[in-house]
Amino acid sequence: MQIGAGFWASKTLLSAVEIGVFTELADAPVEFAELRSRLGLHRRGAKDFLDTLVSLGFLERKDGRYWNSPDADLYLDKAKPSYIGGILEMSNQRSYGYWGHLTEALRTGRQQNEAKDDGKASPFGALYADQARLKGFLSAMSGLSRAANIAIAEKIPWKRCQTFADIGTAQGDLAVQIALKNPHLRGIGFDLAEVRPVFDEYAKQHGVSERVRFQAGDFFTEELPRADVITMGHILHDWNLQEKKMLIRKAYEALPAGGLLVVYDAMIDDERRKNTFGLLMSLNMLIETPGGFDYTGAECIEWMEEAGFARANVAHLLGPDSMVVAVK
Amino acid sequence: MQIGAGFWASKTLLSAVEIGVFTELADAPVEFAELRSRLGLHRRGAKDFLDTLVSLGFLERKDGRYWNSPDADLYLDKAKPSYIGGILEMSNQRSYGYWGHLTEALRTGRQQNEAKDDGKASPFGALYADQARLKGFLSAMSGLSRAANIAIAEKIPWKRCQTFADIGTAQGDLAVQIALKNPHLRGIGFDLAEVRPVFDEYAKQHGVSERVRFQAGDFFTEELPRADVITMGHILHDWNLQEKKMLIRKAYEALPAGGLLVVYDAMIDDERRKNTFGLLMSLNMLIETPGGFDYTGAECIEWMEEAGFARANVAHLLGPDSMVVAVK
Repeated sequence: MQIGAGFWASKTLLSAVEIGVFTELADAPVEFAELRSRLGLHRRGAKDFLDTLVSLGFLERKDGRYWNSPDADLYLDKAKPSYIGGILEMSNQRSYGYWGHLTEALRTGRQQNEAKDDGKASPFGALYADQARLKGFLSAMSGLSRAANIAIAEKIPWKRCQTFADIGTAQGDLAVQIALKNPHLRGIGFDLAEVRPVFDEYAKQHGVSERVRFQAGDFFTEELPRADVITMGHILHDWNLQEKKMLIRKAYEALPAGGLLVVYDAMIDDERRKNTFGLLMSLNMLIETPGGFDYTGAECIEWMEEAGFARANVAHLLGPDSMVVAVK
Repeated sequence: MQIGAGFWASKTLLSAVEIGVFTELADAPVEFAELRSRLGLHRRGAKDFLDTLVSLGFLERKDGRYWNSPDADLYLDKAKPSYIGGILEMSNQRSYGYWGHLTEALRTGRQQNEAKDDGKASPFGALYADQARLKGFLSAMSGLSRAANIAIAEKIPWKRCQTFADIGTAQGDLAVQIALKNPHLRGIGFDLAEVRPVFDEYAKQHGVSERVRFQAGDFFTEELPRADVITMGHILHDWNLQEKKMLIRKAYEALPAGGLLVVYDAMIDDERRKNTFGLLMSLNMLIETPGGFDYTGAECIEWMEEAGFARANVAHLLGPDSMVVAVK
């Protein structure tokens, strides 16, 4: 029942982010009646809703006043730069409903999102067409990736490198985190042209605009930018096997001898029995893309070696994410 | 993210029950390609789907063959009398989608199910109108309640009683479990007339037809049947405060001096911070009913004492369920 009714707790958190509970409570504790009125909640379910968030550890409550738990305050207050709730906003607006068609996806193998009726259309077409929607998606990706990005900014032997290019950079959080931790590096964020304003704003906010620049491009039709290190975070899983291999081959071509390819995803454990989130993320790719899937570290190493890379190794980052680093 | 993306694992289990994975695997381990074909799954997501069920503990896998874990085999194989997946089938067909409107429910206080456009209509009207749908609902209720029912069949001082009446009996699982453990008792299952065939079949299946009989009635317009003990399992939470008090009062009237009222629900802890499932069940009542809500043991005791009951006490049953027993 905890798993079967798991969508209850999940949707409750998604609605809390939508309604802005944690943003409203960022300043100070608020008494129940006042909070209910500020959030525009009907009398009937308001207390159950807020107390559910208490029982789940997102809120605290004493003497009828509510406030954010420390983690919720840091990560779910929209006014803070540490906000990572974009992925929950997107889940609320899009994925929760699309996942309602999981059975159909399992029977047909076809994506169940905006692009469903388009058959093989890239899901990014619909997302990138509208600037507000695009910004929401890109910021959702930052939220999903930030912790792994910070780990990568620390774990790669960056001292030996001068330049990097982050492929499918989105808002640019990986490029920004790498640049922040490694002041000697210069980097490129590579993505479709529509992404430029969002990337530029984000790099500027973090004070790394002078060392990190945007390069517009389509990795299906163009070469990747040349750099000592090429990174791909939560990119390979979006694409089918042939496309994955093409991206790895293009990375090989863009690197110098001794250059590094760093790929990370919610990589499935080789035995395919422990990383539940990675397996579910792969089902999410079934829902969201025409051919994407998540994969094991062993599979990734095999594709890299096929492209000519050597010394490919898996390293766990944190949570469900692992990276594979390989040397040209 | 585990809670925010919790609907992924949840919907995966619901789809597995819908597709009949555990029923198909009840006889013997099945090799992947054969299983995929029997279940009618597309090649693309099949392995991720089944391996997700392995990682969640519902399936086991070795050398490419899958079989049920012991719990899944006992509780999720439709061919076994111990099957409790009806509640998951109903979640899959109904609740998952209705919960997509949680934010609207929180803003308006209005139910979000089949009866949504009807405003104050009872949710049971739509469910009871169709015999197949009714049977699905009643069997779902048995699945949700069986473990608590077995506990109640053991924990009440039944030796001192001769008769009981189970109010809102549905399929009759509580009445059946009480009768099975206590051969000296005779009982009544009380519910709307449409329920009779489902109840009669269930009582017969369990061999208690001679001691447990169905009585058709509407507890809004009629008196409750007289008995030494009156039970209400997962009933009070369906109704608003006035209706809850009315039901408790009618129970008082139907009992002899010294008779017992036994009420159970996923009762919320008095501090409203621990029983997450009870709090979420109350939000489920917001989604599913015009005025229902779950409640704490202390609230239930207060209503019972107001009706004239004495010595009301809360006792935990198991999981999220607790009962309150009171004496007339």
